[in-house]
Amino acid sequence: MRIECIAIGTELLTTRRLDTNSVWLGERLADLGLAFHRKTAVGDHREDLAELIREALQRSDLILTTGGLGPTFDDLTKELFAEILGAELVEDAAARVDMLAFYAARQRVPAQSNFKQVLIPMGAEPLRNPVGTAPGIWWPDPPGHPGARIVMLPGVPREMKRMWEEQVEPRLRPLAGRPTHTLRLVVAGVPESTLDERIREVRQAHSHLDWSILASLTQVELLVRSGETTALEAVRRDLKPVLGADLVSVGAGNLEDAVLQGLDAQGQTLAVAESMTGGLISARLTAIPGASRSFLGGVTVYSPEAKAALLGLPPDFLAKQGTVSEATTIALAEAAKAKLGATWGLAVTGNAGPGAEGGAPLGAVFLAVAGPGGTLSAGRAFHGDRPDVQLRGSGAALDFLRRQLNLVLNY
Amino acid sequence: MRIECIAIGTELLTTRRLDTNSVWLGERLADLGLAFHRKTAVGDHREDLAELIREALQRSDLILTTGGLGPTFDDLTKELFAEILGAELVEDAAARVDMLAFYAARQRVPAQSNFKQVLIPMGAEPLRNPVGTAPGIWWPDPPGHPGARIVMLPGVPREMKRMWEEQVEPRLRPLAGRPTHTLRLVVAGVPESTLDERIREVRQAHSHLDWSILASLTQVELLVRSGETTALEAVRRDLKPVLGADLVSVGAGNLEDAVLQGLDAQGQTLAVAESMTGGLISARLTAIPGASRSFLGGVTVYSPEAKAALLGLPPDFLAKQGTVSEATTIALAEAAKAKLGATWGLAVTGNAGPGAEGGAPLGAVFLAVAGPGGTLSAGRAFHGDRPDVQLRGSGAALDFLRRQLNLVLNY
Repeated sequence: MRIECIAIGTELLTTRRLDTNSVWLGERLADLGLAFHRKTAVGDHREDLAELIREALQRSDLILTTGGLGPTFDDLTKELFAEILGAELVEDAAARVDMLAFYAARQRVPAQSNFKQVLIPMGAEPLRNPVGTAPGIWWPDPPGHPGARIVMLPGVPREMKRMWEEQVEPRLRPLAGRPTHTLRLVVAGVPESTLDERIREVRQAHSHLDWSILASLTQVELLVRSGETTALEAVRRDLKPVLGADLVSVGAGNLEDAVLQGLDAQGQTLAVAESMTGGLISARLTAIPGASRSFLGGVTVYSPEAKAALLGLPPDFLAKQGTVSEATTIALAEAAKAKLGATWGLAVTGNAGPGAEGGAPLGAVFLAVAGPGGTLSAGRAFHGDRPDVQLRGSGAALDFLRRQLNLVLNY
Repeated sequence: MRIECIAIGTELLTTRRLDTNSVWLGERLADLGLAFHRKTAVGDHREDLAELIREALQRSDLILTTGGLGPTFDDLTKELFAEILGAELVEDAAARVDMLAFYAARQRVPAQSNFKQVLIPMGAEPLRNPVGTAPGIWWPDPPGHPGARIVMLPGVPREMKRMWEEQVEPRLRPLAGRPTHTLRLVVAGVPESTLDERIREVRQAHSHLDWSILASLTQVELLVRSGETTALEAVRRDLKPVLGADLVSVGAGNLEDAVLQGLDAQGQTLAVAESMTGGLISARLTAIPGASRSFLGGVTVYSPEAKAALLGLPPDFLAKQGTVSEATTIALAEAAKAKLGATWGLAVTGNAGPGAEGGAPLGAVFLAVAGPGGTLSAGRAFHGDRPDVQLRGSGAALDFLRRQLNLVLNY
């Protein structure tokens, strides 16, 4: 079966907007033992999109599109498929009811333009959109293309994902090949290239599997795919000793999850004090449901006033130690721990640029963890622009704490 | 001139590896007044790639490829173009010398497979690779396609970018169009569909320009492109009265920038107290360079303990008013303002789910701004999953504050 993905939106060609939908869809297809033959991004231009749709109908059995289902003038996906396939657009009563309900629930009235969204090509089925106003389209055996299938999904990732999981995947399952299983391991504190070398022997011993390494700014993911769960079990067994304490999690979890699980497992609590990371650590932790079980709170002490007022650091101490220093970071971690009566206090200071900050060089980051057994601190030097250094700093801090929590767990 | 980009590599279809090369190339093209009509990602499969190359030769004047120039069996880009265009591959002496020098400099000897990299299609020119072993290809007027141009670049971003800047851009400059200018307006507090209707008349009055609307969870971007800055000036003039106080910024700035500029312009300062948004507001503000000029700091009061310990909210007050309520949010905003001696205090409480929180319904959000002229508060109800509600909540809070700042500015 030839499958292609079409991501629709001028922003995908002209701005820094990356097409992450097709990446997610590629992984869901892999779960079904299916794969894309190609992925195309095209703008909201009638001629370009129409040309691509005509080509795709000739060469592919399954066409997945994202985007271009909205209410605005430049949303053309459904209209062009219908036009090219010579199918009339008719209003779908259920879709209309869904849309009116969507707005009623928000005490709003749909704009006239919204009603274009409930038009469905004759012969196609609407896919309900439980989280938005744009229904998707499931179009099996479109006119002149028996056996082909067209799936149109909104470009908004949360709408697209939910509709795929609830409505598209069940429809595609009958076409599925042998499902591939994925072993996902998350590693922190090791550069991608070093990790690559460390796992080389294990990878060669299991070279018949599909391996990939994906580095992000705060962790590295190792993905191994196979049709056989036993094969993946063996890989996991072989990798564990090689990865040691750098292994953050096996499965879906990331650095944040590992930290919260480590705290939860021991019924312990955390308080955070951030300057350079400006709230990023708190935000990453509180993005996880249930964070409130172990995360008591945090302070973003972005000024000397804040360090004094919120954590009682004396101005003369700051004047002496500097706003970016190991001593100040230790003091912040201990003050946060004491102030909130938490088991652990985690603090970060640093200079993310662009200018110099408290005399510290660009990319300098200090970490401190105040815990039951005392306080540990460390310094790091990161490269990259401001957002990079802030993100790396927040990751280094979470990983620094995670390693202490594991020490405790291993007792 | 029709321009398309082909990113070659199975990893682009099967893993979370994003094709960032084409995004970078799209921006470089815009600098030349050129733009992609489409971007395609395809695997290292002979048939798929050959089919795509044949199509591209038919429809495009300029074909940019990245990847598939390496030494291994699945590097096919150059070979397939040559095969399809019926051009012989011949060894390029200069490329051979470059490669031998590259290895010599590293005290290494090239593998036999490396020599396939110095084969160049007859009629094409090699593009030197100063940082790697794979030369690129510049192929003007390929057989049967007079006037067309093919550019093949390595997939390694570092190599691709350097070769583009030093060798490809100079060759394309003569073809450059008139550089396009972009008018970017950011709007908040208005759904995409409503905005679309509000601007319809203006858009129709300037329908010869290239318009796009980009909605995110916390703002909507309006992008208008033209070769004429005067045409964009006219659009801006016409849109301003239509957008009114919902217009956040013109140009590069977002909601965060508008808030910081509003504070800066008046030499005022801000303190933030967050529960549901968990540090997101602070993180968004401190992502902006120079935030420290007006952002003093923030607290993430994720537990009653934190609300009491950091901002002195009495436990019985919280017990009576609830952790998610307008009264508590007002108290948090005023306490944050007082505690840090800031001009403004901004607070958010709410329930982002998944469970109930302080008796408040899922998606309920309360905002409060304590300012020089007193305290204003508001309630909102958002839909979506946890990260959505947190992000929307942070945006609503920043926009709530922005509107007060503008009121002050308008005096």
